[in-house]
Amino acid sequence: MERKLAVIVPNLTEGHKDQIKAAAERNGCELCFLQTPEEDSAYTYNCEIVFGHWPEIAKTSKTLRWIATPYAGVDQFLPPHTTEFANPEALLTNSSGAYGVTIAEHTVMVLLSILRRDPEYRKVIANKEWKRGLSIRSIYGSRITLLGTGDIGQETAKRLRAFEPKSIIGVNRSGNNPGNLFDSIKTAGTHGDGDGDWESILPETDILLISLPGTKEAFHMLGKEQLAKLPDGAIVINVGRGSVIDQQALTEELQRGRLSAGLDVFEQEPLPQEDPLWAASNAFLTPHTAGNMTLTHTVDRIVEIFTENLDHYIKGEPLSHLVDRRKGY
Amino acid sequence: MERKLAVIVPNLTEGHKDQIKAAAERNGCELCFLQTPEEDSAYTYNCEIVFGHWPEIAKTSKTLRWIATPYAGVDQFLPPHTTEFANPEALLTNSSGAYGVTIAEHTVMVLLSILRRDPEYRKVIANKEWKRGLSIRSIYGSRITLLGTGDIGQETAKRLRAFEPKSIIGVNRSGNNPGNLFDSIKTAGTHGDGDGDWESILPETDILLISLPGTKEAFHMLGKEQLAKLPDGAIVINVGRGSVIDQQALTEELQRGRLSAGLDVFEQEPLPQEDPLWAASNAFLTPHTAGNMTLTHTVDRIVEIFTENLDHYIKGEPLSHLVDRRKGY
Repeated sequence: MERKLAVIVPNLTEGHKDQIKAAAERNGCELCFLQTPEEDSAYTYNCEIVFGHWPEIAKTSKTLRWIATPYAGVDQFLPPHTTEFANPEALLTNSSGAYGVTIAEHTVMVLLSILRRDPEYRKVIANKEWKRGLSIRSIYGSRITLLGTGDIGQETAKRLRAFEPKSIIGVNRSGNNPGNLFDSIKTAGTHGDGDGDWESILPETDILLISLPGTKEAFHMLGKEQLAKLPDGAIVINVGRGSVIDQQALTEELQRGRLSAGLDVFEQEPLPQEDPLWAASNAFLTPHTAGNMTLTHTVDRIVEIFTENLDHYIKGEPLSHLVDRRKGY
Repeated sequence: MERKLAVIVPNLTEGHKDQIKAAAERNGCELCFLQTPEEDSAYTYNCEIVFGHWPEIAKTSKTLRWIATPYAGVDQFLPPHTTEFANPEALLTNSSGAYGVTIAEHTVMVLLSILRRDPEYRKVIANKEWKRGLSIRSIYGSRITLLGTGDIGQETAKRLRAFEPKSIIGVNRSGNNPGNLFDSIKTAGTHGDGDGDWESILPETDILLISLPGTKEAFHMLGKEQLAKLPDGAIVINVGRGSVIDQQALTEELQRGRLSAGLDVFEQEPLPQEDPLWAASNAFLTPHTAGNMTLTHTVDRIVEIFTENLDHYIKGEPLSHLVDRRKGY
């Protein structure tokens, strides 16, 4: 009997499908492409391997032995969203590394739009006006801090360096400086071993970029107290997970006009209709589009990661991009 | 009698004024800061030196010996705008080099906004919607051509390189590759010596960036025929002068939806109320803000260029940034 593989991933081109078909064939897998798990529940819930972001399968299928999500963020597969897998031994891999390019481009776009007051200029143009005196700011000479120095942080730092900021500081838990892309590294502690020295950089941060995953340790890492340490006029951009910021505290800073923010992620998504952030001054919002899969390059990488891992899996070799479900990344 | 200097430049801080005062003092110049020439016509029109963008002074003042404009573009001082200077020997200098950073940041912002369909996402957010499936594109892997490889083109190329495009090709008249910032250089001819080979690159250009001055030679360099050579979906961004593009031909391409454009400059400015560009699909317009002087870094450079040149001028040394009024740059 062939080993059953279900692929439930949006935005696949025919080329991507051919790549997956070839990988399934060479590894002796039965293959089915679906739009949703329910399109063929009998198949989906009896698969050994699922390529798709469907936590409900992990929660209910006892035959599942490996689920590969095309996303980088896995919080939907972890408590409180998913308390356990129906097969506790089932492996989870993600597609981190596929999103660095697109999220870095998003971050630079949002940052420049805020610095150059583009939302206001969009209104000027919509009114057919020729107003051009708004004072603007620059990445050039700015002090930048990145919370998170993984793939996203690194791709962002590489691009920002070319704009000649005054400094690019990374914050992580290891204290390592990946690729020497950062001028220096501050450390963020985990529960039980102190908080690290990262907060000391906040008063010297003009631009704070966040790409942290939605782990317990990072919950409200940027609270009222930390936000208050940022200088007037600082810009906060979050492309990681909404839970990292105390959203109410940030909203108050935005309403007061003291800080600006570019937010792609929120504590609750979709952002509720009544949320004051929709109308907050200085808020540049996007509906979780920084790293979505509508960029071909991203899907190329996702398919590459999966097909390589399928070869490893069938040979019984260790998988790349394996998520430690206790750690959450 | 002291040599009279009028400074008629917006956005000067007290620090900038102090720098100019010190330079005037060490060079034995009488100094007056004005908002407009008319604020003190008796003074303005009897000056030897003017620091400001006021072509009417050059047209009418016989005492003028040097006018230093804080702008990079000097077309207002050239035919047909200004046919001759009242004192034909008067020197003209510009502030090219002060705008590279701000215009490069503008260009990257506009390019990413178009690629990532930000104007559409602004509307999604304004309607409090959570729509996120628009297909987007990337600088990564794109083929970029820059018409103009001066300060603006170079600063832009430096920044774009960090986004890992497939190629960055420069187009200029000399065939030189400044700082080796470009993968290769195509040449644009001037009247009388052919047209160069630059048009051959158009069919292989995903992103065309224009920073050419408004010279006779560059007039409608991008006409209907050249635009037609660009592939479907190509993006044209113009931060040089509007006269470089046949605006009507471009408008037709935009209305047809074949190309997208980011336009900061136009054949007529302000853009007339009835111009179809205001409503053209795929047009990202800005009211000539790419290089305006609301960025402190830009004004710093402008003041630096002027005060250094004042030292040269008084000592009888050659000036930097001297414009050859016959050539137009």
